[in-house]
Amino acid sequence: MSESNLLVQTRASLPLDPTLITPLLHRPGVLDRRARIHTTLSKDPLFNKSVKAHLSYHQSQLRSLRIARALLNLKTSEKWSEEDWIEAIRQQDDPMGISLHQDAFVAVLKSQGSDAQWAHWKPLVEAGKVTGCYAQTELAHGSNVAGLETRATLFKDGKEWKFRVETPRTESVKWWIGGLGHLANHALVQAQLWIDGECKGPHLFVVPVRDIENHRPLPGVVVGNIGPKAYGGFSATDNGYLGLKDVTIPVDFMLSRYAGITPEGGYKAAKHSKLSYGSMVALRAGIPEAVGWVLAKGVTTAVRYCLVRRQFGGSMGPQGVLEGETAVVDYASVKFRLVPLLARTYATILTGRAFFDAYKAMLADLMKGETGGLGEIHTASTALKVCVTEDCVAGLEEARRACGGHGFSAHAGFGQWWANIVPSQTYEGDNYVLPQQITRHLLKTLAALHKNASHPLTPSTAYLRNITNRLWSSQRSPVITPSSWLKPEHQLAALQKRSVTLLLNLAAKLKAGKPWNAVTYDCHTLARAHAELYICTSFRSTVSALPDGQVKDFLTKLVNIHTLHTLVHSSLSDLLEAGYINPTQSRSLKEVYEKLVEGVTREEMVLGTDAFGFQDWELGVLGREDGGVYGGLWEEVRSEERGREAEEARQVWLSGRDGKAKL
Amino acid sequence: MSESNLLVQTRASLPLDPTLITPLLHRPGVLDRRARIHTTLSKDPLFNKSVKAHLSYHQSQLRSLRIARALLNLKTSEKWSEEDWIEAIRQQDDPMGISLHQDAFVAVLKSQGSDAQWAHWKPLVEAGKVTGCYAQTELAHGSNVAGLETRATLFKDGKEWKFRVETPRTESVKWWIGGLGHLANHALVQAQLWIDGECKGPHLFVVPVRDIENHRPLPGVVVGNIGPKAYGGFSATDNGYLGLKDVTIPVDFMLSRYAGITPEGGYKAAKHSKLSYGSMVALRAGIPEAVGWVLAKGVTTAVRYCLVRRQFGGSMGPQGVLEGETAVVDYASVKFRLVPLLARTYATILTGRAFFDAYKAMLADLMKGETGGLGEIHTASTALKVCVTEDCVAGLEEARRACGGHGFSAHAGFGQWWANIVPSQTYEGDNYVLPQQITRHLLKTLAALHKNASHPLTPSTAYLRNITNRLWSSQRSPVITPSSWLKPEHQLAALQKRSVTLLLNLAAKLKAGKPWNAVTYDCHTLARAHAELYICTSFRSTVSALPDGQVKDFLTKLVNIHTLHTLVHSSLSDLLEAGYINPTQSRSLKEVYEKLVEGVTREEMVLGTDAFGFQDWELGVLGREDGGVYGGLWEEVRSEERGREAEEARQVWLSGRDGKAKL
Ligand SMILES: Cc1cc2nc3c(=O)[nH]c(=O)nc-3n(C[C@H](O)[C@H](O)[C@H](O)COP(=O)(O)OP(=O)(O)OC[C@H]3O[C@@H](n4cnc5c(N)ncnc54)[C@H](O)[C@@H]3O)c2cc1C
Ligand SMILES: Cc1cc2nc3c(=O)[nH]c(=O)nc-3n(C[C@H](O)[C@H](O)[C@H](O)COP(=O)(O)OP(=O)(O)OC[C@H]3O[C@@H](n4cnc5c(N)ncnc54)[C@H](O)[C@@H]3O)c2cc1C
Repeated sequence: MSESNLLVQTRASLPLDPTLITPLLHRPGVLDRRARIHTTLSKDPLFNKSVKAHLSYHQSQLRSLRIARALLNLKTSEKWSEEDWIEAIRQQDDPMGISLHQDAFVAVLKSQGSDAQWAHWKPLVEAGKVTGCYAQTELAHGSNVAGLETRATLFKDGKEWKFRVETPRTESVKWWIGGLGHLANHALVQAQLWIDGECKGPHLFVVPVRDIENHRPLPGVVVGNIGPKAYGGFSATDNGYLGLKDVTIPVDFMLSRYAGITPEGGYKAAKHSKLSYGSMVALRAGIPEAVGWVLAKGVTTAVRYCLVRRQFGGSMGPQGVLEGETAVVDYASVKFRLVPLLARTYATILTGRAFFDAYKAMLADLMKGETGGLGEIHTASTALKVCVTEDCVAGLEEARRACGGHGFSAHAGFGQWWANIVPSQTYEGDNYVLPQQITRHLLKTLAALHKNASHPLTPSTAYLRNITNRLWSSQRSPVITPSSWLKPEHQLAALQKRSVTLLLNLAAKLKAGKPWNAVTYDCHTLARAHAELYICTSFRSTVSALPDGQVKDFLTKLVNIHTLHTLVHSSLSDLLEAGYINPTQSRSLKEVYEKLVEGVTREEMVLGTDAFGFQDWELGVLGREDGGVYGGLWEEVRSEERGREAEEARQVWLSGRDGKAKL
Repeated sequence: MSESNLLVQTRASLPLDPTLITPLLHRPGVLDRRARIHTTLSKDPLFNKSVKAHLSYHQSQLRSLRIARALLNLKTSEKWSEEDWIEAIRQQDDPMGISLHQDAFVAVLKSQGSDAQWAHWKPLVEAGKVTGCYAQTELAHGSNVAGLETRATLFKDGKEWKFRVETPRTESVKWWIGGLGHLANHALVQAQLWIDGECKGPHLFVVPVRDIENHRPLPGVVVGNIGPKAYGGFSATDNGYLGLKDVTIPVDFMLSRYAGITPEGGYKAAKHSKLSYGSMVALRAGIPEAVGWVLAKGVTTAVRYCLVRRQFGGSMGPQGVLEGETAVVDYASVKFRLVPLLARTYATILTGRAFFDAYKAMLADLMKGETGGLGEIHTASTALKVCVTEDCVAGLEEARRACGGHGFSAHAGFGQWWANIVPSQTYEGDNYVLPQQITRHLLKTLAALHKNASHPLTPSTAYLRNITNRLWSSQRSPVITPSSWLKPEHQLAALQKRSVTLLLNLAAKLKAGKPWNAVTYDCHTLARAHAELYICTSFRSTVSALPDGQVKDFLTKLVNIHTLHTLVHSSLSDLLEAGYINPTQSRSLKEVYEKLVEGVTREEMVLGTDAFGFQDWELGVLGREDGGVYGGLWEEVRSEERGREAEEARQVWLSGRDGKAKL
C-alpha cells in the first residue's frame, strides 16, 4: 500500500462502524434527502461549486441569483416539499439572498402576521412572485433596536388608514439587509410606529420595494447592494440598503398577529409582550447546530489531511523519493489541536440539537399561551450562541492552520466556510451585547435566591442554588486521585463553582458602585462560563442516555476530553484563584487530560470524522475520503480555463515592457 | 458640534502632540518618502485601491502584473532609489509577485551568490529583464527542507560541468512559490545537490523557467498558477508551481558564496555551516515589525470608529433622530478589547524594530566571520515570529469584531489586511515547527547550566540562571500591596518564573521517557512564554531609555498595560499552579490591570493611534481621520459602476422567471 494511503489503511481497521454513530448526529431522513437533492442538482453545471473561488463579488452575486431562480423553478418542477427546498438551499454551502427570503422573510411573515395576512401573502410567496428580506438594521443602528429611526406613521387617506414609511436621514437607511441587494421585491421593515404623535416602539411592516413585474425600485425607494464583505464572506448574499421617502402602504401591511391597529386608527397592544419574541429568535436558536456542522467539515478535512501529510523522520529511498516519514497527525502539536476540536464538534452538534428541540417544545407551549419556558430558552439560546460561534470560528481556523501551507489554498475548503460563519459572532445579537442579558437574568436569579433559598430554578440555573449553602465559599474540590477527574460530578462541580464565582465577583463590582457599562466585559466572561457549563452538562447527559456499548464508550471519551479541555483551557486560573483546586489538583487535571488525548488513536479520529457522513462533494480537496490530496490539488490547477488565464497574464506582463502602453 | 464628531472633538483636547511619538515608531525619513511616493503613484488610476475588493482572483492577478510593470517603469523614469522602490511596492498594501522578486529572489541572490555571480545577474535584474522567485516548498514538503525531492545532478557535458535539475514525481513539484505563477522568468530553486551518486543536501540554483523575450515556459518546464487562496488573501501574489524535467543549467548557476563546485567537479563545502543561514532569515526577521504595522491599521480603525459609533442610552430627539447615545468606546466590553490591543501594537512595533536592528548588527558581524551572535538572534527571531504573528492575527480580528456589523464590510479594511497576514503563521517556518528549535536551544542551555552554574548566557536567556539558585523552586512573588504589580522587576520576575517552570516541566516529561514528538505541543506553549517575556522585557527597556517627560509617561502606561495583560491573560494559571503567586496576589494583579485600562482616556486612545501617522489613503472607510464613516460607506455604494451591476442583476433575476432560459 502506498504511503499516501495511511488514511485508507487506518479506515480498514476502525474499532467500530461509523454508521452506528451517524444517526445520533443527524435528524432522521436528512442524509437520504441530501443525497436525493444532490443527485437532482448535480445534473445542472450551474451548481458546480468549483467555480466559486474564481468569481468576483459581482459574479458571485449573479451566480447566486441564477441559482435562486433555478431552485425556485425546480421546487415546482420536482414538487419539492418544504424540507426538500430548504435542503436544496443549504446545499449551496453559502448563505444567499434566497436563504434569507426563506429563513427570515417567510418565517417571520408566517409567525408574526395574522392568519388573514399569511393567507394573503402565502400564494404570492409560493408562486415565487413575492421575494423578501428582513430589514431591521440601519446604517447607524444595529444592536439598539429600540433606537431605530425608520418610522411608520399612521394617517387617514380619504376613508382608509395607511402608513407613511420613511428613513429620515442617511444614518437611518436600512443596511446589511440580506436578500435586499438584488433579489427581494418586498422587505419586512422594522420601524417605529407613530400614532397621533406618539411613538409605540418598533413594529414590523411589509414594504414593497421593487415592482413585482419589472423588478425596478418603486417610487420613493432607494435600494441597492452594500458591496463586498471581509474575507470574501457572504459573497453569495446580496446584503442591501434601503432608503424610504414618503412611501405609503396599506394599514394591513403591518404584521398583526400580536399588536395591531383598530378600525378607528387606535393602537391595539399585544396581549403578552413575550409572545412575538418566541418566534423571532428562531434564527438564533438554529445557529449552534449549524455552525457545529461547519466545524465538522473543517475537522474532517484536517484529520484526513494530517493522516496523508507526512513531514520529517524519513529517509531517501532509491528513487530519490522520501520514505517512512512521520504522518503529521502523530505529532503531539497536531493531535492536541485536532482531538479537542473533534470533541468540540460533537459537543456542539449534540448540544445544539438538544437545545433546538427544547426550543421547538417551548414554542409549541407558547402558542398555547404558556410563557413559563421562555426565560430559560432565552438565556440558553443567548449563552449558546455567544460561546458556540466563538469556539467554532476559532476552531475552524485552528483546523485550517493544522494543515500547514495547503490549508491556505482556497481548494482546501476552510476559507469559504470560515468567512461565512465568522459574522455569526456579530449578527443575531453581537457577542458582547447579548451577554448582558444573560448576566441580568443570572443576577435576578441570584437576588431571588438571596431572598428565598427555595426560589424555583430552571435546569440551566439550578446550580446557582449552591450559594445558599453556608459552606459554599469554603468548598474545595474533593478530587484526590487523578482519575477522579473522570467523574462527571467532579468535572461539573468545578465548572459550576467557576460560573458562580464569576457571577459573585461581578455582583460585588456592581455593589461597590461600578456602573453597568463598566462591567460589560465581565458579562462576556461570565456568559461564556455559563455556556461552557451548559454545553458540558448537556453533552454529558445526551451521551449518558445512550444504551451501553461501544458507541457510548467512544462518545464518553469525547465528553471527557471536551469537559477536561474546558477545565484546563478556560477555567484553571479561576479555579485556582478561588481556592477551589490546589496546585496538585491542577497538575493532576492536566495529566489526566493529556493522557486522554494521547490515548485517542488514529482509528478513533477517522471513526469520529467519518461518522459525520460527509460526501466528497461537500468538502474541499484536502478532505477527500480516499486521501488523494496531491492528485486533487494538481487537477485544480491544470484546466483549459487556467491555461487561458495564463496566456492572458503573459500578454499583460509583456505589454508595457518598454515603458509604453498598458493593456 | 454634531454627534458624529466625537472623534474630532476628542482630538481637539489631546494631552500631547502625537507627532512627538511618531518618530519613535518610524525609521528616519520613512514618512516623507511615503508621502512623496504616494504623490507620484496617485497620478495613475491603476494604483486606485478602491477597485480591489471588486476583483476576481484572476483580475487581481492581472492588476498586480500591471502594477509591477508600472512600478518597474517608474523606477527608471523617476530615478527611484532602492528604498523608494521598496516603499512603492509596500504601498500596494498587498504581497505581490514583485515583492517576492525583490525580498526573496534578489535578496537571496545577492547574499548567497558569489560576488562574480551577483555581478552577472545585477544588470539583468536592474534592467527589469530578469524577474525571479524563491522556490523551496514542494507539493509534499514544506517544513522538512532536508526532505526536498527536487534534485540537481552534476554531470559533464563535453568539457563543461552542468546540472540536470528535475522534480522526480508530482509530489516533488514546487508549490506555493510567490511570483512564479505569472511574473518570474527565473527561479531560485532549492534542490538536493547530487555529485557522483552522493547527496550533499539542499543547495540553491538559478533556474531559468520562462523565456526572457516571449515569457513562455522553457523546454522541460511546467509552470503555472496554483490559484485562489483562503479568505481572498494573497490574491495579488501569483503563487505558482514548477515541474522540471531534464532541465540543464550551467555549473555557475549554483549559488556559491559559501559552498561551491571545484573546476574538477568536486564539492567545496561552506566554511561555516552557519554563514549562509544568517541572511536566509532576513524575511523572518522582518516579520514582527511588519505585522505590528498591520495591527496598527486595525487598531487605529477600531478606535476611530468606536468613537464615532454610538449605541444605546440616548433619547429620541425632535426630528425622530436619536440623541445622546453612548459612544461604544465607552463600554468596558469595547475598551477592554481595544486598549490592550493598542498596547500590543506598540509592544510589537518597538520590539520588532529593536530586534531587526540587532539582527542587522549580527549580520554585519557574521560577514566579518564572527558567528557568536547567531544563536541568540536565531532563537529570538523564531520566538518572536511565532508569538507576534499569532497575536497580531488574533488582535486584528478582535479589532474588526469590535466594530460590529460594519467591521465585516470589505470597505472597513480589516478583511484584506487580515487575509494577507494570516499565513504568516505558516510560512517562514510553521508556528508549531519553529518552537522545537527554541525548545532545543533552551534545553541545551539548561543542561549547560546544570553542569556549570556560570555558563555564559545571552541576554534573552539570562533569566535561566535563576534555576541554579537553590531556593528557586520555593521562590514566591514578593508583591504585597497591589501597586507593587507596577514595579517592572515584579512583573518580569513573574514572567521569568513562568517560562522557567514550563521549561522544567517539559524537561521532566522528556526525562520520564516521553519521546520528542509527544512534547511538540508543549514546545509551542514554552516558545510563547519565552517570547512574551522577551517582548515585555524589550518593550520596557526601549521605553525606559527615553528621556523623562510626557511621551515616556504615556508609553510607560502602555508598557504596564501590555505586561499586566500578558500576566493576566496568559500566565495566571501557570503562576498559581507553580505557587509563585497566591489567590490574593492573583486578584490584586487583575485589579491593578483593570484600573490601568479603565484609566486610559479617549484622548489617550486617539493620541496613541494618531501617533502611528496614517493617512486616510492607507486605511478603510471606518478609519477616516475626520470620522466621516457613514458618508464614506454611502459613497462606496452609489457609483455608476454599482448602478450598472444592479441593472445586470435585475436582468439576470428576471430571466428564467418562467422556468425558461437562463442568461
Ligand atoms: C453578514 C451580516 C448579515 C446581516 N444580515 C442582516 C439582515 O439580513 N437584516 C438585518 O436587519 N440586519 C442584518 N445584519 C446586521 C446585524 O444584525 C448587526 O450588524 C448586528 O446586530 C450588530 O449590530 P451593529 O452592527 O449595530 O453593531 P454595534 O452595536 O454598533 O457594535 C459596535 C461595537 O459596540 C459594542 N456595543 C454596542 N452596544 C453595546 C452595549 N450596550 N454594551 C457593550 N458594548 C456594546 C459591540 O460589542 C461592538 O463591539 C447583518 C450583519 C452582518 C455582518
Ligand atoms: C501564502 C504563502 C506563501 C508562500 N510562499 C512561498 C514561497 O514564495 N516560496 C516557497 O518556497 N514556499 C512558500 N510557501 C510555503 C511555506 O513556506 C510552507 O507552506 C510552510 O513552510 C509550511 O510548510 P508545509 O506547508 O509543508 O506544512 P507542513 O509542515 O506539512 O505542516 C502541516 C502540519 O504538520 C505540522 N508539523 C509538520 N512538521 C512537524 C513537526 N516536525 N513537529 C510537529 N508538527 C509538525 C505543522 O505544524 C502543521 O500543523 C508559502 C506558503 C504560503 C501559505
